[in-house]
This record gives sequence, structure tokens and C-alpha cells, in this order.
Amino acid sequence: MQRKILLTDCPDAKGLIATITNICAKHQLNIIKNNEFVDNNHGRFFMRTELEGIFNDETLLADLDSALPTGSHRRLVAAGRKRIVVMVTKEAHCLGDLLMKSTYGDMNIEICAVIGNYDVLQKLTEKFDIPFHLVSHESLSRPEHEAKIIDTINQYQPDYVVLAKYMRILTPDFVAEFQERIINIHHSFLPAFIGAQPYRQAYERGVKIIGATAHFVTNDLDEGPIVEQHVINVDHTYGADDMARAGRDVEKTVLTRALQQVIDEKVFVYGNRTVVFR
Amino acid sequence: MQRKILLTDCPDAKGLIATITNICAKHQLNIIKNNEFVDNNHGRFFMRTELEGIFNDETLLADLDSALPTGSHRRLVAAGRKRIVVMVTKEAHCLGDLLMKSTYGDMNIEICAVIGNYDVLQKLTEKFDIPFHLVSHESLSRPEHEAKIIDTINQYQPDYVVLAKYMRILTPDFVAEFQERIINIHHSFLPAFIGAQPYRQAYERGVKIIGATAHFVTNDLDEGPIVEQHVINVDHTYGADDMARAGRDVEKTVLTRALQQVIDEKVFVYGNRTVVFR
Amino acid sequence: MQRKILLTDCPDAKGLIATITNICAKHQLNIIKNNEFVDNNHGRFFMRTELEGIFNDETLLADLDSALPTGSHRRLVAAGRKRIVVMVTKEAHCLGDLLMKSTYGDMNIEICAVIGNYDVLQKLTEKFDIPFHLVSHESLSRPEHEAKIIDTINQYQPDYVVLAKYMRILTPDFVAEFQERIINIHHSFLPAFIGAQPYRQAYERGVKIIGATAHFVTNDLDEGPIVEQHVINVDHTYGADDMARAGRDVEKTVLTRALQQVIDEKVFVYGNRTVVFR
Amino acid sequence: MQRKILLTDCPDAKGLIATITNICAKHQLNIIKNNEFVDNNHGRFFMRTELEGIFNDETLLADLDSALPTGSHRRLVAAGRKRIVVMVTKEAHCLGDLLMKSTYGDMNIEICAVIGNYDVLQKLTEKFDIPFHLVSHESLSRPEHEAKIIDTINQYQPDYVVLAKYMRILTPDFVAEFQERIINIHHSFLPAFIGAQPYRQAYERGVKIIGATAHFVTNDLDEGPIVEQHVINVDHTYGADDMARAGRDVEKTVLTRALQQVIDEKVFVYGNRTVVFR
Repeated sequence: MQRKILLTDCPDAKGLIATITNICAKHQLNIIKNNEFVDNNHGRFFMRTELEGIFNDETLLADLDSALPTGSHRRLVAAGRKRIVVMVTKEAHCLGDLLMKSTYGDMNIEICAVIGNYDVLQKLTEKFDIPFHLVSHESLSRPEHEAKIIDTINQYQPDYVVLAKYMRILTPDFVAEFQERIINIHHSFLPAFIGAQPYRQAYERGVKIIGATAHFVTNDLDEGPIVEQHVINVDHTYGADDMARAGRDVEKTVLTRALQQVIDEKVFVYGNRTVVFR
Repeated sequence: MQRKILLTDCPDAKGLIATITNICAKHQLNIIKNNEFVDNNHGRFFMRTELEGIFNDETLLADLDSALPTGSHRRLVAAGRKRIVVMVTKEAHCLGDLLMKSTYGDMNIEICAVIGNYDVLQKLTEKFDIPFHLVSHESLSRPEHEAKIIDTINQYQPDYVVLAKYMRILTPDFVAEFQERIINIHHSFLPAFIGAQPYRQAYERGVKIIGATAHFVTNDLDEGPIVEQHVINVDHTYGADDMARAGRDVEKTVLTRALQQVIDEKVFVYGNRTVVFR
Repeated sequence: MQRKILLTDCPDAKGLIATITNICAKHQLNIIKNNEFVDNNHGRFFMRTELEGIFNDETLLADLDSALPTGSHRRLVAAGRKRIVVMVTKEAHCLGDLLMKSTYGDMNIEICAVIGNYDVLQKLTEKFDIPFHLVSHESLSRPEHEAKIIDTINQYQPDYVVLAKYMRILTPDFVAEFQERIINIHHSFLPAFIGAQPYRQAYERGVKIIGATAHFVTNDLDEGPIVEQHVINVDHTYGADDMARAGRDVEKTVLTRALQQVIDEKVFVYGNRTVVFR
Repeated sequence: MQRKILLTDCPDAKGLIATITNICAKHQLNIIKNNEFVDNNHGRFFMRTELEGIFNDETLLADLDSALPTGSHRRLVAAGRKRIVVMVTKEAHCLGDLLMKSTYGDMNIEICAVIGNYDVLQKLTEKFDIPFHLVSHESLSRPEHEAKIIDTINQYQPDYVVLAKYMRILTPDFVAEFQERIINIHHSFLPAFIGAQPYRQAYERGVKIIGATAHFVTNDLDEGPIVEQHVINVDHTYGADDMARAGRDVEKTVLTRALQQVIDEKVFVYGNRTVVFR
């Protein structure tokens, strides 16, 4: 008995739920949990089906392909622990939370490696017996630097790449290499305060809430489909540094909540938006 | 073309989604939106199916009854405006919000009537051209008082009865008359501060959050399955009166959010718990 | 015995608290509540002192003026009910909440009049026995239209003007007429989604939180010092209309919370920022 | 030049602010930040004054003592890094967050030692080069066990003792030893779900919010003056384990927020309540 997750998204049509569930029944797979959503604005159907049984992936997918409308995507992934590579620069809080949660059973991930463009977080990473790769960007062109990172990542064949406060812009080529598999934490409630020093910007603007956004990375570091956002209240007594400090707690919480949804295979990306099932 | 909502809850079993969606397909009903949930602790399956088409209720329900396991409940209700009777005592804020929202199109309800055990809110109700019934409890036994209220409610045949700060305990007989159809707002984040003067209790305990709970009424006014809860932060500068004032905003928000879910037929009750679909 | 509030803001200097409290003591005024804040980035001191006693405003202010450093502002205002004029366009929810709260004792304001550029909300206003002035902008230039509004407002000599979803841009002349006395509700968590149709923008961006901002009006309708902000969570099931509906509850809550702080004379404005004491 | 914090609480009286600030001025101390609060229900005045200058503690306190009313407390404490001993049982998340924050500069604390009644968290503690003391309760009476813990704590002379999911009840003797210096995290929004297995209780009750409470420890582990509380939304898809997992993020956030206030000397305790200045 295995557990797998079937993720289907396709043009909306009549009878899709019956079609898919009948195929699952024919394959004697038990539906443990099922979610659907239809985006009526875009006429698109999304369904996540958690299945238990003995799988013949090939025939199951073939049956689906012949039954689903043109323009359908479907994916069958094993439930369970996911392999993660984390990219960092100098800030410790998001990495620390991921290390704690993977070590103490709060997230079903294996952190295969941490890659930093500085060595600041090497010691922290190695405390948790995880390999740290220093891939400095110094005296390298951006494509050269990214090529080295891609090589390092590909040694580990991770399911997802997590940017845990990695502070360099990624090129379209890098993003294309890990399509819909890179999750970033942005230190603002996007789309406010795009760009550098968002807490400074927030302070100058005199806002009463600050927040963070976890999103898939597309070709613009601050854009990309949003998975999770959260804010906290601040007031006039917060300087920019106080906002940054308070913000770090929000950042790590938002990043790990988003990653949890992603590794549970609950997130669909379409265009610049996401469906995040519960 | 009509729109109706099919609500099914039954012992969990293999193939239920396929079974139900196949019956819908056989009846040429289009599924607009579908949600399911399985409570694995209690082995119970819940499904809400929003359907569009031409309905033959009798044969549809008969088909379901012969296909579903023993111990199943199913209900087919028309989508659209619901009829509401509101019960009040003296506080205006929840009633006011319901009147505003029904008048200005923010909730798809018809407030058929307001019943008060005092006349304090008669003027407010009548501003909105809605009948107000004063049913004083004075010099009446509780059963006599409730009998008069039940008579008044039944004139209107409402879908739901909303206790918008109705401050009297209801008897089991009253509750039985409107089984799973009475929604109450409790001025606390239950199960804290059950009973009288919750804001005074909250103040005395020195809490840093206060909240409100909307729930279906069962035989204990402060118990019953919770539909919605929300809290706000308070601090040492809040006296009990300040908490009460801040709390009134939370109360009305929580009550109308809960009622919205209820009139959209998104809420299942089982035991002391609810499933609230999105 | 009267109660007044002394609001002082001035360049920071040693001994300011002692200076001010000694003057209050000399005048035999009892300090009921006191708050101070120093903005170290701008070297500015803010103090709100709630006083009780018999006031000789002239000598008290003269004593302060001779003791405080150059560049000081001080204001002595009576505590208690404030006079408000509300400006609206077509949306009822913020006005409705203000009418309910002023009528039922939840806000210590007198709504002297409501001014609309459409007559949509006349009926609602008059239900609460408050004069409604239709000042249509049709066939008027912007200065002509605003001149008529200013005349109408000035009939009532209000303490504050509240824009309760007034959907027209105000000119610098209008704003100058009521300097730091106009409060607006913006249907977004500024600075995100400035401009028209913020809920549509939010939907298109696929955000997971939406919010509202109450701020003083300066020469840009969407800018101005922020008094209060609040957000709620949304998800992929929310269309732009659902976001707007959910947002309306946030808008009215944020507006009335902000107005409460303002009428309690707890808000200092400086530059584009505010100090909001508790 | 030093920075110290003067904490005064006393029966309310006229002129207290002037009295205290005049004494500070006489000692040529500059007030960096000042907060006051009067609890009118209990007639008690609280003031926190952050001072800079050259201190003669003895004469400053003597001046205050002769000027303040009978029943006053005043405390003068150095600003800056505080010494902390952490007590744990088996759960890692709160300890991990404290270790990360103290190591990476997010909290101005020195964790002198960690004491556990199991050795589960020894490895984690020692990763961060902090001494871990296993003080098992096995085959010891409660007084014997606590005596050993008290001895261990007293080796380090900490400012505060933090119970980071220490799961044993403390005796009045232990509490008396560290009066108003023990901070606990309770895995519920008190006063709901006192006692064992609060997430199980919360699940059974079907609540829609769960939370955590940080409080000073008095003679009842689940009581004591509340410093900070926070909640998150849950829904029917959360089992008791999911609630516990989501709750752990809230617990660590609430505990560190509370501790931050405490080490900044912003918290006054009186009776079962706190004043927490900003």
C-alpha cells in the first residue's frame, strides 16, 4: 500500500470530478482526501486527490490522459518526505527555523544541503550535520556564479529549492532550471515595498502593519505567485531596526508555513496566482 | 435552470465521491463547486455540491438514498436569499450590522422580523421598515414566554433564527423547535469566560486578547458547535468598558461572518463540532 | 472641574517632562493620564497630558510658551464629544457604522451633517434624523464643487471631516481649509494598491491578505499620515467581489478605530507619520 | 555615561510625574524614554523612566523614597544584556528559538545554562556551546528535585528563569525563590484549556482559534499574570496533532515576545495583572 497525490488542472468541463474519481475507482485506489476548485474567471479546474492503494502509474496516467480535455496537466507524486536545498546569504533566522523543524520532526523535509554566497552561516548549518557549500559570487560573472550553484544543487536532486533570505537576484536561466520549484521569502507584504530595505521604506512611510510574503520565484525576485502572507501590527515606537527585528519572526513563520503547503503538494500555480488547498 | 446545494454526510466508505458525482451526472446536473472532507477520527464523510440544471428533487434524492450507506443524511436546498428572524434584547450593534448588510446588499438575507424582550430596539428596526415584535418576558413563565416567541417566529417560517445579543437562556424545547437553525453570538472566545459579564471577567484576569464566538445553539447557551471565532489585542489601558466597546466590533463581525457561511449552506454540524467549507 | 487635553510637540530637549508637569502643577491641574514619545530620528518630543481642574487657558498657554523651546506647538482642547461632518458617495457601510455608533453611544461624536455628491445615502442618513446635503458635482468645475462643500461644512463648524468612502479627489485648497482635520478610509493596506479598484488589483495579484488604511488627508488622496491599518486573510476562493465584500467590514472597522483615536486627541501628525498614543 | 531604568509603582497621587522627573533632573539624569499608567480601578500609578547619565544609585533612591507616598516600590536596573536560565523537558521549539535569537543578536540575553529533567535537549543545547544540566526528577521527592534545580540555577545568578515547555508543576517554595522572575509559556489562550493536553481539548471542543499565553509564574502553573497572548485560526481540517504543530509556532513567538518585554524591563506585575509598556 502506497500513498500518492494526483494533481490535475485542466480547462473546466462538465463531469470532471466523476471522470477522475471513476478512474481512481477503476484502479482500486482509495481517495483519502479530495479538494477541487474552479476558477470561473479563467475557466480552469483544479483537483488534488490523495490516494492510497497499489499504483500502476503508467496506466493510471494514460487513462487520465485519454479522459481529460486538451490542455490538461496532471502529476502523480509520492506523499512523504521531500528533499530540500536551502540558499542563504547572511541572515540566520529562516535557516535556523528550517533546521530546527526538520531536525525535530515539525516538517517532513530532508535538508540535503545549504548553499551560501558567504560563509556566515556555515557554522550554524554544520551544527546540524548538514553540508554547507560556500559558492562565493566574488570575481565571478552572474552566469558563472549561478552555473556553480546549479551544479551544486543538482548533486542533491532536491524536490524544492528554498531561498531563506538569499539576497541576490536570480537570472531567468536559473529560474527556468527549477521551474515552480523555488520558494522565496520576501520581507514585505507584497506588492508593497518592493526592492531594497523594505523595513526602512515601511518606517519612512509610517505604516502600522508590516509583513512578509512567501512566493514561487519567477523572473522577478519580488514578483511570482504568492503562497502565504502574514502581517503584524507596529506603531510609532518602532524604528526601522525594530520593524526588521519583529519582521524576522514573521518572515520565518511565513516561509515555513508556505513550504509546508508546498511539500504537502497542496499548491497549484497558474499565471501569477496560486490555489492553496487545505 | 436552477441552482441548488446538495449536502451529504454519511459514514465514510470507498467511492463516495464517484457515487455522488455519477448520480449528479446521470441527472444532467452540472457541478459548479464541490467540497469534501473526511473526519478520520469519527469515520464520517461530508460533501457539499453546488449544482446547476433542471432538478427532479424526488428522483435525485431517491437515487442518493439507494446508493449511500446506512446512517447517511442528505439535504437539497435552493441557493439564494434566506429568511431570517432576529432575536434581541437591548444592545444595538449586531442588529444594526445585520440591518445594514441586508439593506445594502452585503448579505443575501431577508430579515422577516425582529423579536425583542424589551422595546429598546423597536425604533431602530422600524427605521428599516421591518416588523418588530415586543414579546416581554415579564409576568410570564419561561415556557409561556417561549411559546409566544415560537408562535411569532413561526408566522414567518424563517430558514434561520439569529440571536443578536438575546440575553436570555433558551429551554431545550425551544432549541428542539429550531434544531441546528439557531445561531448565537457569544461575547467571548469560548470556552473562556462562559457566563455573565465576560468582559469583566477578562479584565479581572488581565488577558491580552478578547474575542467573540458565533455558534449554533444547543441546550447550553454558551456551548454548541462553533462556526466562527475572532479576537483582537487589548492591553493594560483597557478597562472592562473599553474591552466591551472594542468587543462589540468583534461580535458583530463574527456573527455576520458566521451567518454568511450558514446561509451559503457551507456549514455541517456533527456532535459539538462543525465543518465549514470555503 | 473641567477636563482638557494638552498636546505638546517640540524639538527634544532635556527636562521637558518636568517643565510641562511643573507648569501643570503650578496651575493646580491634576494629570489624569500622560503619554510621551521622543522620535530620536527627528529629534522631536511629543506629549499628551489629560488634565483635570479649573483652567485659565490663556495663562497656562503663556507659561508653556515661555518655557518651551523655539519650534514648539501646543494645543489645549476640551475632552468630550466632537462634532463631525461626514462626506460620502454611494457606499453605505462606513456611514452606517458611524450612524450606529454615534446613535447608540459607542462613539462620542455628534454627526452634524452628511454631505453626498449623490443622493444614494440620503434615505439612510435621514433615518437617523441627521441632515443630508446633496452637493452634486455635475456641471460644476472642481473648485466650484468644493466651494459649495466647504460652505456646507462651515455651517456646522465641525472638529473633523470624515471621508466615509467619498470617491473624489480633493484639491490642495480643500485640504488646506481643514488642515489635519480630514480623515479618509482607503480600501487597501497602503502603500499597496494605490488608485482605482484596489480589490481588482489585489485579486489579479493573487494576494493572500487584503486590508484597509485610515489616514489624514494631505494633497494626495492615497497618501497622508496613516492612523490605523488592518488586514484579513483571503484565499484563492475569493473573487474580486468577495474581496470587496470582506474588505468592507475591514474598512468600517479601521475607519471607526482611527476616528476614535482622533476624537480622543491621541494622534499627532508630523511629516508623513503619526504618533498614536494609547 | 550609563543607561538605567527606573521602575516606580505607588499609590496614585497628585504630582507624581513632576516629583519623579524633578528628582531625575536634580541628579542631572537625562530622560530617554518615559511611560506612565494609572490604574484607576486600583488607584495605582506606574512609571518606567529610561535614564542616561552618571548615577549615584544610593542618593537617587533615597531622594525617591523620601518623596514618594507610603506603599511605593521603586527599582533601578541597568539597561542591557540579561542573564537567563532556561528550563525544559522534551520539546525543542521554544529552546531552539531562544538559542537562535541569543546567538544571532535578536535578543539581548545570555543563556547561562539550560536545565532539563530529561536529556533529550542536551545535544541541541551543546551545539550552541551552552552548558546543559540534567536534573532528573526520578526517584526524588518534589522538594528534593526542586532543591537541586534551585542550586543549579543559583550557580548562575540569572536575572530571569524561562520555562520553555518545562512540563512539571512547581511548588510555592520554588516560585517564592524567584519571585516575579519566572516566565512560562502555556500552550493555550488562557484561561481556556487549563491543564493537560490543551490541543486535544481544543480539538474536541471544535474551536476555530488556538493560541498561547506567556505569563509570570505564581503558585498555579496555568495562572499568573499574563504578559503576552497570540492566536491563529484553525479549521475542521486540523486534527489535534495539526493544532499542536501550528501551536508550536505560536508558542515560541509568544514566549520570545514576552521575554523581550521582560528583559527590556517594560513589565510591571500587580496582583494577577500586568502593565506592559511599549
